[in-house]
Amino acid sequence: MEAIRSYLETNRRRFIDELFSFLRIPSVSPGEDHEEENRRAAERLKELLSSAGMDGARLIETGTNPLVYAEHIESPDLPTLLIYGHYDVMPAAIEDGWSSEPFEPELRDGRVYARGAEDNKGQIFIQVKALEYLLAARPVNCNIKVIYEGEEEMGSPRFRKALPSLGELLSADGALICDTDMIDADTPSLITGLRGMAAVELNLDGPAQDLHSGMFGGAVTNPANALTGILAALTDGRGRIAVPEFYRDVVDYDPQQRGKIARMPFDRGDFMAEVGVEDMSGEAGFTDLERKTIRPSMDINGISTGYTGPGLKAIIPGSATAKLSFRLVPDQDPGHIIRQFSEYVQSLVPPGVKLTVTVIGEAPGFVCSDDNPSIRAAHRACRQVFGRDPVHIYEGGAIPVVPAFKEHLEIDSALLGFGLPTDNIHGPDENFRLEQTWKGIETVIAFVRAFAGS
Amino acid sequence: MEAIRSYLETNRRRFIDELFSFLRIPSVSPGEDHEEENRRAAERLKELLSSAGMDGARLIETGTNPLVYAEHIESPDLPTLLIYGHYDVMPAAIEDGWSSEPFEPELRDGRVYARGAEDNKGQIFIQVKALEYLLAARPVNCNIKVIYEGEEEMGSPRFRKALPSLGELLSADGALICDTDMIDADTPSLITGLRGMAAVELNLDGPAQDLHSGMFGGAVTNPANALTGILAALTDGRGRIAVPEFYRDVVDYDPQQRGKIARMPFDRGDFMAEVGVEDMSGEAGFTDLERKTIRPSMDINGISTGYTGPGLKAIIPGSATAKLSFRLVPDQDPGHIIRQFSEYVQSLVPPGVKLTVTVIGEAPGFVCSDDNPSIRAAHRACRQVFGRDPVHIYEGGAIPVVPAFKEHLEIDSALLGFGLPTDNIHGPDENFRLEQTWKGIETVIAFVRAFAGS
Repeated sequence: MEAIRSYLETNRRRFIDELFSFLRIPSVSPGEDHEEENRRAAERLKELLSSAGMDGARLIETGTNPLVYAEHIESPDLPTLLIYGHYDVMPAAIEDGWSSEPFEPELRDGRVYARGAEDNKGQIFIQVKALEYLLAARPVNCNIKVIYEGEEEMGSPRFRKALPSLGELLSADGALICDTDMIDADTPSLITGLRGMAAVELNLDGPAQDLHSGMFGGAVTNPANALTGILAALTDGRGRIAVPEFYRDVVDYDPQQRGKIARMPFDRGDFMAEVGVEDMSGEAGFTDLERKTIRPSMDINGISTGYTGPGLKAIIPGSATAKLSFRLVPDQDPGHIIRQFSEYVQSLVPPGVKLTVTVIGEAPGFVCSDDNPSIRAAHRACRQVFGRDPVHIYEGGAIPVVPAFKEHLEIDSALLGFGLPTDNIHGPDENFRLEQTWKGIETVIAFVRAFAGS
Repeated sequence: MEAIRSYLETNRRRFIDELFSFLRIPSVSPGEDHEEENRRAAERLKELLSSAGMDGARLIETGTNPLVYAEHIESPDLPTLLIYGHYDVMPAAIEDGWSSEPFEPELRDGRVYARGAEDNKGQIFIQVKALEYLLAARPVNCNIKVIYEGEEEMGSPRFRKALPSLGELLSADGALICDTDMIDADTPSLITGLRGMAAVELNLDGPAQDLHSGMFGGAVTNPANALTGILAALTDGRGRIAVPEFYRDVVDYDPQQRGKIARMPFDRGDFMAEVGVEDMSGEAGFTDLERKTIRPSMDINGISTGYTGPGLKAIIPGSATAKLSFRLVPDQDPGHIIRQFSEYVQSLVPPGVKLTVTVIGEAPGFVCSDDNPSIRAAHRACRQVFGRDPVHIYEGGAIPVVPAFKEHLEIDSALLGFGLPTDNIHGPDENFRLEQTWKGIETVIAFVRAFAGS
């Protein structure tokens, strides 16, 4: 441990420079305008892996944003660990409420502020630097394969499609993914369940152009009125989703399982203070923690229609558009949900407007086994670095490759991340505590050594 | 008539130049950023009135956008006509779907394309040029007072407040307002009823910033979900407005009155083709024409919340905002409607979000008398220029000064406009047929002469 800390201390300045230079690349994946930046991020990552001592670092083409692969093969007799992460990030612009430019990282109060500072560039940087240390102090006593992708924020469509053909290249005995949160800075956390996702865009087309609401209002169907009617009909008055058959495959947890969730560390007041609200609401009959982990949910992610500048522009907008996403529990099939949803919303469209539904994201949920080589290595590493076992928690976000690794590579993943709930990933002022970076590097080094000894 | 046409022919080029130069001034009133441009428009209008031969042209300060006044007093024994209009326009930007810059007028296919080409700069230009002709061929045989304002698109708040103190200056026997449409290019139309308006902005504040919907969705109240729920609850499933007491003062028309509306020239197919829709919907039990004239309506004018760029950004937005306007029938009191509305929407707010309601527009409706000096002058003018009496119709849009003229000046107004339903006022590609300008000038000249002889 002393040797690791001294290595981090010595290289601290260089690590921060390398991290900042990586964060400066605006490798935004949603939308189609950032191919070049994503390729630059992939190239940079390839260089970082080579400098860390990994062999055969290269890009693998899948159509748009390339995969980055590198390996360290010590011996065919040793266990092999697969490390996964993503270099693409969510869109960000200073107008969204950032205190500083999202692609010009700043270090303030021990936190790095930048899009991707945590999700996931900051966390894959932890992995790369752990590898750098391990390879400088070889033997590692296990083989390591690293695969990074550039479309996770879009649901990993091309990587998941390519996975069956990459079976041999990526064959391993377990996987490590650092793309999740700890409950708090003292409580290492293993995510053993993830919600899936189905996301759609709704476009309602009405009159050929905006109309004067005084002259036409009441007679011409208003696409914005129609849109709010459709969106409101997606839930009932008690926080339940009203799409037919939506709850068909939702498993009811038994009292014992619910008791386990109830005993997890969760302070409602602290949680509300963190997110900046004074009250909360959700599905009747479930606790806050259940609502955001073992129950499905529906969130409108954005709406755009009509005039929203200062003052009044009394118009009937020509069209209205909304994006929304369902979070699904493991047994729900995103395809089934999208079919049910599409049929239901079409039935709600009033005469005079036309509805188009576009699928913009889709990923199944997942429940991991509690005991496998990756999970055991995570426990040993956490005991060593944090002095305690990680808690096992369900998290709301989807990581689409986890079920794909199980299906195509037949391996279990340890979802051992170092984010904190205050990092504000996907929002403005995304940030990551430097302290978590150093703690993370120590933990990943300990993880690999534990995995090697397994 | 020949003399007028020859005058128009001779001055055609100059008129178009003057009109274009007037339209180039972006005198947008909603919002607070255009005070300087509005003042420039007012100054230009003052010059146009002086050049037309009007006396004492001057600006009257009311706080922001000034009033423009000018007069022609021939004799205290002659009747006095008050002419009203507005030089302010709705916001416009080429990104809204304009084919050319909204403040760089273009003449295409006999139509002038520009913001304000019709509403109302184009129509007050008709008045000014009619005055120019009349004053060149004096005596006029009546006195004329002109008052133009710069806040009509905001509901004329300051002009209406100033009216009581302007009683002596504006005293007259009748008023002419050219700010409305004809049913079609062959059918001169007098508007004898106008709907009122109540417009509000709703702001829902939720979490301090956007949150990751996977991690927080289901537990944290989503302001966009809440907003759509509130907006959808404003109407029932049959196109009726669900605000308590909303219909308290809505008069039911008797079969004879409804029969009169049913006999007005209105072709559903033509109307739908004009606005670019294939079907329409509205309040059950009423015809299309009734829905947009004698019945109240509610239109969402704009919504803004969350992420609406390309792809998916799976967030819970930190806030959500909507603008909406009610069109009211004459007996409905905007103040009562706004109070009922505010109380009702507050009762719909779920825990975890805060709702702020801001009033952004308010104007009572009005029904004119069918017979008064202005209406009689309009009939004579239309018979002379169009060879037929104008039809009497109700229109959906509010012109807030009409009831204020009745209350404070005790005069009736003739709402005799030359717009067409295809002019697309308030929308992109607002335009006005040049032919309507020439026809309008002839009609206003005939109107003044008829009024003088009354």
